[in-house]
Amino acid sequence: MSGEAAFIDLLRALARDPAARGLMDDAAVLEVGGARLVLTHDIIVEGVHFLPDDPPADIAWKLVAVNLSDLAAKGATPLGALLGYALGKADWDRAFAGGLRAALAAFDMPLLGGDTVAMPAECARALGLTAIGRADGPVPSRGGARPGDELWVSGAIGDAGAGLALLRAGEAEPARLVERYRRPRPRLEAGRRLAQLARAMMDVSDGLLIDAGRMAAASGCGVAIALEAVPLSADYLALRGEGRAARLAAATAGDDYELLFAAPPEAAARLRALAAEIGLALTRIGAFAAGAGLALTHAGAAVALPGRLGFEHGADKGESC
Amino acid sequence: MSGEAAFIDLLRALARDPAARGLMDDAAVLEVGGARLVLTHDIIVEGVHFLPDDPPADIAWKLVAVNLSDLAAKGATPLGALLGYALGKADWDRAFAGGLRAALAAFDMPLLGGDTVAMPAECARALGLTAIGRADGPVPSRGGARPGDELWVSGAIGDAGAGLALLRAGEAEPARLVERYRRPRPRLEAGRRLAQLARAMMDVSDGLLIDAGRMAAASGCGVAIALEAVPLSADYLALRGEGRAARLAAATAGDDYELLFAAPPEAAARLRALAAEIGLALTRIGAFAAGAGLALTHAGAAVALPGRLGFEHGADKGESC
Repeated sequence: MSGEAAFIDLLRALARDPAARGLMDDAAVLEVGGARLVLTHDIIVEGVHFLPDDPPADIAWKLVAVNLSDLAAKGATPLGALLGYALGKADWDRAFAGGLRAALAAFDMPLLGGDTVAMPAECARALGLTAIGRADGPVPSRGGARPGDELWVSGAIGDAGAGLALLRAGEAEPARLVERYRRPRPRLEAGRRLAQLARAMMDVSDGLLIDAGRMAAASGCGVAIALEAVPLSADYLALRGEGRAARLAAATAGDDYELLFAAPPEAAARLRALAAEIGLALTRIGAFAAGAGLALTHAGAAVALPGRLGFEHGADKGESC
Repeated sequence: MSGEAAFIDLLRALARDPAARGLMDDAAVLEVGGARLVLTHDIIVEGVHFLPDDPPADIAWKLVAVNLSDLAAKGATPLGALLGYALGKADWDRAFAGGLRAALAAFDMPLLGGDTVAMPAECARALGLTAIGRADGPVPSRGGARPGDELWVSGAIGDAGAGLALLRAGEAEPARLVERYRRPRPRLEAGRRLAQLARAMMDVSDGLLIDAGRMAAASGCGVAIALEAVPLSADYLALRGEGRAARLAAATAGDDYELLFAAPPEAAARLRALAAEIGLALTRIGAFAAGAGLALTHAGAAVALPGRLGFEHGADKGESC
């Protein structure tokens, strides 16, 4: 067991309150005074989640977006944010504040408070945000899928990963893929609507396959995903093609910030109508079954699981709950 | 203007929601449903707020306590916390988790969630906590004092600063002073009761003088403090004596986590009765007047302000709001 996994086990032993959802969900859900609050805190670290030469305004956007994506996955509307900020150089901080303003305005989330600290020189900086939201209906957990439910995903998968690969190769085109990496759009409206229909919901942050496996594990089911059904954007298809390798790359890349959810088969017609109404693709990509684990198929044939399903906690980016 | 002050000015321009209190208060105050939530986020940084060889359990305690002290200053009862944790070595993390458990249990605050991240090797670690509380009555701001109000403080001042000085000199006695530095006790019960009586309230974290000056500035008043009235513990008096220098050291040391509040003169009898009831000293140490600024006296004679009133934001520890 990694040091991180051991530490999180220790934290779980402290997090007995039902609002903590066993630290197994994307966010905490706290009932206060007739309201259902959804609370999340995500940190991004220089050199891990962003690079020192990434545009500061994009980093601010991403910090907001990754936290709002957790609220979206619980069907919540943002109420406000607290910023935990490690100061950098004055120019950098100013550009960050500009990106923060843009992101908060885009998603209608007030800044309520926080803390700024100076880090010792030469140290990687950690930037955190606490997002507080309110859910006016049910708050689907990760663990509510049942055998027979279908697995759906919003939007297109793999764009952000392709965008990151382009940036690493020194490319900036297609710009829409880079934008999907740098400025993810949390699916707040979709999340609010889907929370009424989904049995389980989470966001795809670490990779479609690894996150689907987590939903199945939390639900005590197995899940099978049909690779050919995984929605890919026109830009992605133009860049990478639609072969099995391209589909596997998309399904393991992470940073999608799309919504992954389980719904009973009888919800399919309502989900299709909802997709049309909100102008966001909702695609059925698999199904849950009794048992455990993740199975992949491509055009009806079984596909061996790749060695890496996405970002592993501890090994890569850390765990959020 | 420091880079930090400039950045906070940029944030203030984003924090227009009334719940943010202009980023001028110890915490945000958000009305949701029928509840009044109090929200704060404080970060402590290795090498700045704690030393690498401080006991990890004490660091965990302090992280909880400094956040709860902000809730106490707004009269709130803790509802839960989100932890933002940079992983260290496994032994260190385990000891931290033990201190976290002790502090959360001591103050009856559930752990609800958070995020853990791995920092690049050799980097200072930043540990953050978001505390969420609920106020069932008025939530005094820093800025509600009026000319004629009296300035009061809870407990004793200077113990934690003396404890830190002892540790820096390699001493561990008197143990009670060291304990006051390492394991501050947020004044939650006092804060709840005082919120009914105080016109303005904040906690003393950066130093009595600097914090009193901030309350006066936020209230648009001046404030005069009688140094001989500043409450000192028996341990502090035994170690440092009660001369003017010892009193000035206490009043500028910081880390007290006592409550500083303004109340009209007619509240004095009720405050004395409250002190007896809750078993915590409440001491009148000064008065507000029309005008601006901080004035000091000692036994009736004016005392020049020391060059350093406490921890200055930017220069020392960063700003929390």
